[in-house]
Amino acid sequence: MKDTELTLAEAFGQAEFIIGGHGSRKVKVLQEVLTHVDGEQYSDHYGNGEIIDQFQQQMADVLGKEAAVFFPSGTMAQQIALRIWCDRKGIKRVAYHPLSHLEIHEEDGLKELHQIESILLADEDRLIRLEDVEGIDKEISCLLLELPQREIGGQLPAYEELEAISAYCRERGIKLHLDGARLFEITPYYQKTPAEICSLFDSVYVSFYKGIGGIAGAILAGDTDVMQESKIWKRRHGGDLIGLYPYILSSQYYFNERIGKMGLYYEQAKELASLLNACHGIRTLPEVPVSNMFHVHFPLAQAEVERILASMAQQFGIGMTSYLQQTSAHSCAFEFSTGDRYQNVPKDKLRSALEWLDGELRKQVK
Amino acid sequence: MKDTELTLAEAFGQAEFIIGGHGSRKVKVLQEVLTHVDGEQYSDHYGNGEIIDQFQQQMADVLGKEAAVFFPSGTMAQQIALRIWCDRKGIKRVAYHPLSHLEIHEEDGLKELHQIESILLADEDRLIRLEDVEGIDKEISCLLLELPQREIGGQLPAYEELEAISAYCRERGIKLHLDGARLFEITPYYQKTPAEICSLFDSVYVSFYKGIGGIAGAILAGDTDVMQESKIWKRRHGGDLIGLYPYILSSQYYFNERIGKMGLYYEQAKELASLLNACHGIRTLPEVPVSNMFHVHFPLAQAEVERILASMAQQFGIGMTSYLQQTSAHSCAFEFSTGDRYQNVPKDKLRSALEWLDGELRKQVK
Repeated sequence: MKDTELTLAEAFGQAEFIIGGHGSRKVKVLQEVLTHVDGEQYSDHYGNGEIIDQFQQQMADVLGKEAAVFFPSGTMAQQIALRIWCDRKGIKRVAYHPLSHLEIHEEDGLKELHQIESILLADEDRLIRLEDVEGIDKEISCLLLELPQREIGGQLPAYEELEAISAYCRERGIKLHLDGARLFEITPYYQKTPAEICSLFDSVYVSFYKGIGGIAGAILAGDTDVMQESKIWKRRHGGDLIGLYPYILSSQYYFNERIGKMGLYYEQAKELASLLNACHGIRTLPEVPVSNMFHVHFPLAQAEVERILASMAQQFGIGMTSYLQQTSAHSCAFEFSTGDRYQNVPKDKLRSALEWLDGELRKQVK
Repeated sequence: MKDTELTLAEAFGQAEFIIGGHGSRKVKVLQEVLTHVDGEQYSDHYGNGEIIDQFQQQMADVLGKEAAVFFPSGTMAQQIALRIWCDRKGIKRVAYHPLSHLEIHEEDGLKELHQIESILLADEDRLIRLEDVEGIDKEISCLLLELPQREIGGQLPAYEELEAISAYCRERGIKLHLDGARLFEITPYYQKTPAEICSLFDSVYVSFYKGIGGIAGAILAGDTDVMQESKIWKRRHGGDLIGLYPYILSSQYYFNERIGKMGLYYEQAKELASLLNACHGIRTLPEVPVSNMFHVHFPLAQAEVERILASMAQQFGIGMTSYLQQTSAHSCAFEFSTGDRYQNVPKDKLRSALEWLDGELRKQVK
């Protein structure tokens, strides 16, 4: 068959409708922002100036914290938050999930640059529970919680469990830090404002290129004195640039554009996950999404699923993912997030594609 | 007099002609770049992709090194270069000038993040000489030279002295790192290409928002294995962003735009310094510039000079600087760099302004 000659990535690239995300990460994303900005506005200047001041203030207000500082990346912001908490307590030890971004995506920056030891809580395939925190047998300065826990499909604890963990940490003098890379995306599920969720935490990081769809950049928020200290570390890390405005302007533009759509993305994620779970053999994690993201698991070898999804993209013009991750010799998965593109996908086309997918899977999966 | 009511910064801001720099750091600097870029181009992606690959290759070629890596900042790039050299030799000690950027502008990042000790060579007010390097009595992994030495007006050693220092370091197994924040700006004086100068060094950092006039960003260049290692540290520092393209595109655009003008900027700097040195009491450092930069010293209290320069800006429409730095109770100075704006300044207006300035200084300076 001619249509199976394309790789999955190629077939995805040619598909008329992509069902996830806001759009490709192309230069036009920044160009659009800049058509809305007065060219006579001055760059921020090493962390000062109107562009950065007002966005930091906006985010401090949104997150309900005294102050907020803009960083080029979450990697930098979070290491710094943990470093400050460790320095204050005089104990260079923190705790987080085994699949935390700090543990698996940062080349051990926390250890190599800050000499901070990490205690890994819970198992890789489940969330941290209060009992895990209660069971820590060494003194720690800070506990980091990631909401939602991305690497297991974006799962969330019950809000009551979160409150209990927060209360426990406050009692014990353990600082609680939020890895809120996808914080805005979970507000519809919890039915809480960002500030309400953040009130459980001592420091908070949020990202602007996940659900918000900006270019790059992060905000760290907390008490004023902590944020002041974080600026010194930002300078040390080499993140106190003479101008961060390309990231600030795009973060602000797309925040204002999309913050009101988080409920829509969440509903769409639930709808799509339900359609996928109806396909033979497919299982989404979580089964019912609690944000705009979930993982899609197939009980079939990666090469097989690639062939099927590439064929689906070519026959129906529906691109679901450009890549798959092998999870065992006979299973694979991909990460999915809804965004602005989902609403442009004709529902009948999507249903036809998924019916066909269901049929193909029935042939292959016992 | 009404015209003295404005502060120097205000008068400078209203002056018709600014004689230094390329222009204000405004958002239009980035907007201009993006009007020349195809919006369908894809963002770089965590250090990979065409946008970053081809600029890194271009810079490796320009600097005559095997490889080059783009960083958000020189602060990050240089700490990382020194860290790699220290790790390889197993000695966490480097040497540099007492007014090196690492010593005075980075909140001790090298020490706080990398535990690297620094030996300060030479005196604050003069360049590092071969004899200073010969006199180091502890083993070091790396010597960092800044060319030109910004904080003393942008001075340069004779090229022969540079060659001698380089040869000495190679003999002794000391790595030589170039802080080339203003490397391109010194090529006309040395009558050497960037690659020729860089051949004396093991690793090189260059900046794109000084003489080049970009938004922010830096290149680190050297052997392939060192550059590969630097990418790991870039990730650890939080500088391996999902998209660095706003800085890459602007660095490349303004590099291509201005790299051919370094000789012009240098000639203009010499011309202006000569005009200034003809004013009573003014002394430039260096007396004859060796790049597009120099410092301008006044033997008069800062407040007095502010009043005079503000008045000059208002009367002649000539803005020379927006600020002064106090150097003693009775002296002050400012840093000056020529750029695209100098050629737009009417020479007769400039001469009239400087004649007036000379007269004012004659009244005040004994």
